[in-house]
Amino acid sequence: MKRYRREDDNSYALGITLTFELLKYAPDRAKRVYIHSKMQDGESLEKLKALCKSLNVPMEYGDKPFNILSQKENCFCIGEFEKFSRPLSKDGSHVVLHNPSNAGNMGTIMRSAAGFGVTDLAIIKPAVDEFDPKTVRASMGAVFHLNIQTFDSFEDYSREYGDRNLYPFMLKGRETLSNLKFKKPFSLIFGNEATGLPDSFLNVGTGVLISHSDRIDSLNLPIAASIALFAATADDFR
Amino acid sequence: MKRYRREDDNSYALGITLTFELLKYAPDRAKRVYIHSKMQDGESLEKLKALCKSLNVPMEYGDKPFNILSQKENCFCIGEFEKFSRPLSKDGSHVVLHNPSNAGNMGTIMRSAAGFGVTDLAIIKPAVDEFDPKTVRASMGAVFHLNIQTFDSFEDYSREYGDRNLYPFMLKGRETLSNLKFKKPFSLIFGNEATGLPDSFLNVGTGVLISHSDRIDSLNLPIAASIALFAATADDFR
Repeated sequence: MKRYRREDDNSYALGITLTFELLKYAPDRAKRVYIHSKMQDGESLEKLKALCKSLNVPMEYGDKPFNILSQKENCFCIGEFEKFSRPLSKDGSHVVLHNPSNAGNMGTIMRSAAGFGVTDLAIIKPAVDEFDPKTVRASMGAVFHLNIQTFDSFEDYSREYGDRNLYPFMLKGRETLSNLKFKKPFSLIFGNEATGLPDSFLNVGTGVLISHSDRIDSLNLPIAASIALFAATADDFR
Repeated sequence: MKRYRREDDNSYALGITLTFELLKYAPDRAKRVYIHSKMQDGESLEKLKALCKSLNVPMEYGDKPFNILSQKENCFCIGEFEKFSRPLSKDGSHVVLHNPSNAGNMGTIMRSAAGFGVTDLAIIKPAVDEFDPKTVRASMGAVFHLNIQTFDSFEDYSREYGDRNLYPFMLKGRETLSNLKFKKPFSLIFGNEATGLPDSFLNVGTGVLISHSDRIDSLNLPIAASIALFAATADDFR
């Protein structure tokens, strides 16, 4: 066992809550469950054993994987899984992340997207690893129930899924979010944390601005994406 | 010089951007600016020197404070400041954080609050330190232009500022956010990251629910607070 690297075929769900999410929402990808010697006997462990048995997922006892994979002191369970890709839904709404660079941010956006019922995520490379254990953790397991597909360029995404309402979020956007009525199916498109979307997106769909006071330079990326998700799906959650 | 502790009178803005925010928005609290030997000469440093001179803030050169105060490799400037408290505005709208436990989350909420023009923050103890360097950093400097006041209990806050529209955000809230028309001045009230608001808030003002799908247990706290801030101030940013 080695430290996780992006080129590996497998990644890890750190902690028992995440491991349950893995077994529940991506059972065919679960390879193995590691249990630390400090893991307490009890209902959770019994439930986990039963679930692993029914899914035919082997359990392994020992502390070594934890020293290698986890920095957290209270992580006593790790789920190993094979990485996967699920094609996006053609007629569902999407979130599109263009060159995202932070694993925690990507995971948080996955969590919000799942929360607002947008279950398809397109990632335009270069991008941070959607299966990095940090991404998985920040997603609180949402990574296991979203459809996630990566693309080499926005053009590639557009060619496959572009026949829809495209909303790039930009400081130069012509529409303000509070005034906009979204049409479905939509794609909410967000740029990199530091640089935003390139100007080429001025020619894509309807540019949207989240207006804010001049006391801050910008909202942070997962905040902006989550506000957009809330606004775009408000009619579904009244 | 020692590591920062909560009981200290002074705290630190790590990095040059934050130090500028300090000098700009809380100049009377700035005590000293530390410069690392790797700080590059150039426009920024000249501007910083001029500003410190005009504000009578001493500059100190040397690497020692950086070894003690900063874990980041690219932090070459630190602003030391005296902690302060500014009373809240009686007729402005507020964010109220009840027992928040994470410095990064608190800072992110400060940034969003400043972004949506809600410049008053009440913190109900026990709570994480609003001047922890981690809070300061996550706030991107918003901590220097908000009015922030801490209270021993919600009753204490209520006694001083309670004559307003109170909106506790709870899973048991009766109104859904998408349907609610906020009345000003308002207080948006949020509970602890793990436990939310206690049931006693069911008797306070108008309880609000941010509806979401059952694919997630909850939204993360700064996301929920920022969505609420966006919705409550939408009319100001059309």
